[in-house]
Amino acid sequence: MSLPTEFHDLAGRVNNWGRWGDSDEKGTLNLITDAVVRDAVATVRSGRRVPLALPLRHDGVQTGVIPGRINPLHTMVAVNRELFGAGTVATSDDIVTMGLQAATHWDGLAHVSHGGRLYNGRPADSITPHDGASFHGVEKTGPVVSRGVLLDVAAARGTDRLAGDHAVTPEDLEAAEEWAGTRIRPGDIVLVRTGQIQRYLAGEKDAYAHPSPGLSLRTPEWFHARDVAAVANDTLTFEIVPPEVPDLWLPVHALHLVEMGMLQGQNWNLEELSRACADEGRYAFLLMATPEPFVGGVGSPVAPVAVL
Amino acid sequence: MSLPTEFHDLAGRVNNWGRWGDSDEKGTLNLITDAVVRDAVATVRSGRRVPLALPLRHDGVQTGVIPGRINPLHTMVAVNRELFGAGTVATSDDIVTMGLQAATHWDGLAHVSHGGRLYNGRPADSITPHDGASFHGVEKTGPVVSRGVLLDVAAARGTDRLAGDHAVTPEDLEAAEEWAGTRIRPGDIVLVRTGQIQRYLAGEKDAYAHPSPGLSLRTPEWFHARDVAAVANDTLTFEIVPPEVPDLWLPVHALHLVEMGMLQGQNWNLEELSRACADEGRYAFLLMATPEPFVGGVGSPVAPVAVL
Amino acid sequence: MSLPTEFHDLAGRVNNWGRWGDSDEKGTLNLITDAVVRDAVATVRSGRRVPLALPLRHDGVQTGVIPGRINPLHTMVAVNRELFGAGTVATSDDIVTMGLQAATHWDGLAHVSHGGRLYNGRPADSITPHDGASFHGVEKTGPVVSRGVLLDVAAARGTDRLAGDHAVTPEDLEAAEEWAGTRIRPGDIVLVRTGQIQRYLAGEKDAYAHPSPGLSLRTPEWFHARDVAAVANDTLTFEIVPPEVPDLWLPVHALHLVEMGMLQGQNWNLEELSRACADEGRYAFLLMATPEPFVGGVGSPVAPVAVL
Amino acid sequence: MSLPTEFHDLAGRVNNWGRWGDSDEKGTLNLITDAVVRDAVATVRSGRRVPLALPLRHDGVQTGVIPGRINPLHTMVAVNRELFGAGTVATSDDIVTMGLQAATHWDGLAHVSHGGRLYNGRPADSITPHDGASFHGVEKTGPVVSRGVLLDVAAARGTDRLAGDHAVTPEDLEAAEEWAGTRIRPGDIVLVRTGQIQRYLAGEKDAYAHPSPGLSLRTPEWFHARDVAAVANDTLTFEIVPPEVPDLWLPVHALHLVEMGMLQGQNWNLEELSRACADEGRYAFLLMATPEPFVGGVGSPVAPVAVL
Repeated sequence: MSLPTEFHDLAGRVNNWGRWGDSDEKGTLNLITDAVVRDAVATVRSGRRVPLALPLRHDGVQTGVIPGRINPLHTMVAVNRELFGAGTVATSDDIVTMGLQAATHWDGLAHVSHGGRLYNGRPADSITPHDGASFHGVEKTGPVVSRGVLLDVAAARGTDRLAGDHAVTPEDLEAAEEWAGTRIRPGDIVLVRTGQIQRYLAGEKDAYAHPSPGLSLRTPEWFHARDVAAVANDTLTFEIVPPEVPDLWLPVHALHLVEMGMLQGQNWNLEELSRACADEGRYAFLLMATPEPFVGGVGSPVAPVAVL
Repeated sequence: MSLPTEFHDLAGRVNNWGRWGDSDEKGTLNLITDAVVRDAVATVRSGRRVPLALPLRHDGVQTGVIPGRINPLHTMVAVNRELFGAGTVATSDDIVTMGLQAATHWDGLAHVSHGGRLYNGRPADSITPHDGASFHGVEKTGPVVSRGVLLDVAAARGTDRLAGDHAVTPEDLEAAEEWAGTRIRPGDIVLVRTGQIQRYLAGEKDAYAHPSPGLSLRTPEWFHARDVAAVANDTLTFEIVPPEVPDLWLPVHALHLVEMGMLQGQNWNLEELSRACADEGRYAFLLMATPEPFVGGVGSPVAPVAVL
Repeated sequence: MSLPTEFHDLAGRVNNWGRWGDSDEKGTLNLITDAVVRDAVATVRSGRRVPLALPLRHDGVQTGVIPGRINPLHTMVAVNRELFGAGTVATSDDIVTMGLQAATHWDGLAHVSHGGRLYNGRPADSITPHDGASFHGVEKTGPVVSRGVLLDVAAARGTDRLAGDHAVTPEDLEAAEEWAGTRIRPGDIVLVRTGQIQRYLAGEKDAYAHPSPGLSLRTPEWFHARDVAAVANDTLTFEIVPPEVPDLWLPVHALHLVEMGMLQGQNWNLEELSRACADEGRYAFLLMATPEPFVGGVGSPVAPVAVL
Repeated sequence: MSLPTEFHDLAGRVNNWGRWGDSDEKGTLNLITDAVVRDAVATVRSGRRVPLALPLRHDGVQTGVIPGRINPLHTMVAVNRELFGAGTVATSDDIVTMGLQAATHWDGLAHVSHGGRLYNGRPADSITPHDGASFHGVEKTGPVVSRGVLLDVAAARGTDRLAGDHAVTPEDLEAAEEWAGTRIRPGDIVLVRTGQIQRYLAGEKDAYAHPSPGLSLRTPEWFHARDVAAVANDTLTFEIVPPEVPDLWLPVHALHLVEMGMLQGQNWNLEELSRACADEGRYAFLLMATPEPFVGGVGSPVAPVAVL
């Protein structure tokens, strides 16, 4: 089995290898210039802050379908321990074991490969069990701060949650852009709301996983044309599940991460943000979403915040 | 053994219990109002972003001295795995096991207790091995975004790194404030630079741990008077080690976390920020430092970013 | 809610506190004397060895119903790593995260408490998050080697698997004893086969968990009368689920572990052993089942072996 | 760099590939026949049981020198939790994260490769991050029960602990055999005592690690000639550290694991066994040392017991 011609055609049209130099490990984050950040800051009106991360708990979104991606297991190593004698100051300490992509997260650029290649042509076998990602480790990402724009596709289509078989198309994105009264600019981070995460919030984990609406394989070309810096949504897989083209799994991952060098985020809770943007009548804001700098990580949990 | 009168006197003077209601779990973060955030945003001039987190790696700052606080152990659960057949899109996945306070982190309000009490008078035994912190879990913190101010005590004293026996006093803080040309305002997050983290960056882990400069037990009263929202520095223990008063360990932790309900941060790398502030001649900036929302967590890794 | 009179009556009749001294941490394992071991060795005829442990894998018996008891997550930290240069000897290394009672295991004596007490009257609060079990930690157990006897209750009742609502009674044990042609002796380790583990082996994890046959609360008195050293079976919970007396959960755990100080084992795979004993016409054998000596552990995985 | 001719010559002389069939995954454990087990059982005289495992604790033998091989980190997930209501039976549960080769352990056959090959010619790349060892995983080992013989090289040489630069030779082994009055037989498991573990027991972890006495690269040929089933000793690395031939690291590992298909054990505490054998004037015993069946594991903790 190999990837179909359709995929390779798309890949050729969105490819960014070499665009920021042969040794680049930041990809489309290069589009976030100081000027973009200043503009992002200038979007703030009310100072209202909206968190976008799911709580990290053992009863999380993972159901076991994705091998090894375990929900956070949090345990105490000390509880009110009086290390310095009875009656003194007591401390509590805790540890966690978790899949880096278990909850609200960024896929790092090394999360996916195809044809033996990572972004910028790096060999896929530069990822090793001992060191993780030698190139494009998530610690190379650095600060992720830019203008964020909510494309509330569900709301723009007059629904609270897209159907499970809805592939979000470029046309959907443009309709949401128009509905929001905001035009995407180079360096923006785009948040695409499908409403699917309501399934998880209602306790329906399996239904959250699949069938699931998600981004069509036609969208990477649109993001590429707009010079978007990163994209996140409110689904488990980001893409529509099951896929649009039979047996062509994860094409959007491959186009975003490998061809474009663009971070993509999953399991972002955009429900409160949807309400806040509607309240304020604005869909652009200052977005902060810096990953934890795990050396060699192929992904990272993130606690994104929108400031309106 | 019990805590000395001196401690209890200080505790009485900085206590915030009930100030924001009996059920409050945010403490001094309540001081970060929307207006404070708007002011924070207004400090941005250049758009320059400075990351403050240490890379998360197994060769981290922990040496085994603090029981159970293990450095991040990152392992791959899949490397270029072609889940859907040979020649298709391949994925890599990873997990981590780590102490939540192992690296650059916030101490959550439940990290410390004394006299059987947590912040706001909650009973210390509300922390349990199965649930962690039932009150003041780090997931209650929410977005941490405010004006940040670097008090570069080392630089203000004309040195690159304070001596190991230097207790940072309120007078030091005021001198640094003056040196910076900025006055601390209510809701600010204060970053106190000692330069001690250079020890770790030079590979001298034991020397980083102790002896270490750190905040004097006289400083909480100063932070309280200024209505600071949170404080972080560039040391392992935050406080001076060994302590100022023999056998009185962690008094600043107890005053900040239990009495005031104020987050404190440790192992923040303030070296690049020190240079950036000096370059730009400004010591106030927009600071983003939202913890990961571990349910019941008594601390959390954080990837703080300053935007100048 | 408190435990019913019926429970307390049973507890009084099987209690072993003080029987082997006030500081004893071995309980009924004291019954395994050197002479018992010599007799156990003398049971060996063929030299055939039968393993009784389930493979340790992430797809194990735990379904998430027992909070925090995670199936083994095994990851590689190095794969064919040529630490000493290309072309030299390469090494692979791995780690695991697992619940100590996730798979085939012994419950340690500190696994259960009631009325604030552990075996031998030790206070339950001697178990702490930092140290685990200060008394009766599984590392105190030492070698577990004795005569093992299979009481194949399923086979003795002419079935391959007991029904889900079958509480194994003393009468069942005696019928199985007679069927086996072996009488239980002091210091024996008794393995009770229900056949329930076939559910797990067939991939029906939920059905394995419940409803499940298991030992009746009337059996501890029988084990006590016979001076059995330890008991294990082939179910998830050991006891019948749901319980015989409404709302009286885990009475057999409390009687065995707290009152008698007797190890009990769960998730032991007795299928091959059942066939081997039938083949050889003998139901007594040399049993080796030493737990891993986790300091402070309240349980331990074990890889038991029967030698016939 | 590549392995020297001397190594390849030795490899050719001890190679067992194909000896037990092309699909064999048990190696020299095939030498433990039912008859060997019967003989092993017949060595038991007193019934005295001696445990050979170090306690599993976070303060274990690992110092960080071997990357990723972390000492056991044991945490409680529940302490006296009354799951079914106040006053009912309370349970405690725990988990562990550990390197499978962190403490007293067996190296599995897949732990080492050279020239891209594992035992029996299997390709080294059959070990993957997701599945671990596809061939020769430690779960394939099955029961490890045989006659054990203590070759107390330290005692035979009239010392309590061999010097750090002592390579144990075939002549040493034969002298210890003679001193013990026992001749090694096919299928025996040989325990070689150097006394080095006293370093660890005295708290001198670094001194335990190196310099360390250990087996000479001349010994595999001796074990091969004697048809030994497995070998273990009381050192961290098994082999002498630093190595006998400059830059030739881990040759004994490669000869035992890859060429011979023979398990080797490390960090076995042979101190009490040494005293027990001296007391009883016998150095052969029944040895039980079954690894935990981690699927795909390249090693496993083990809690060995000698029965005299």
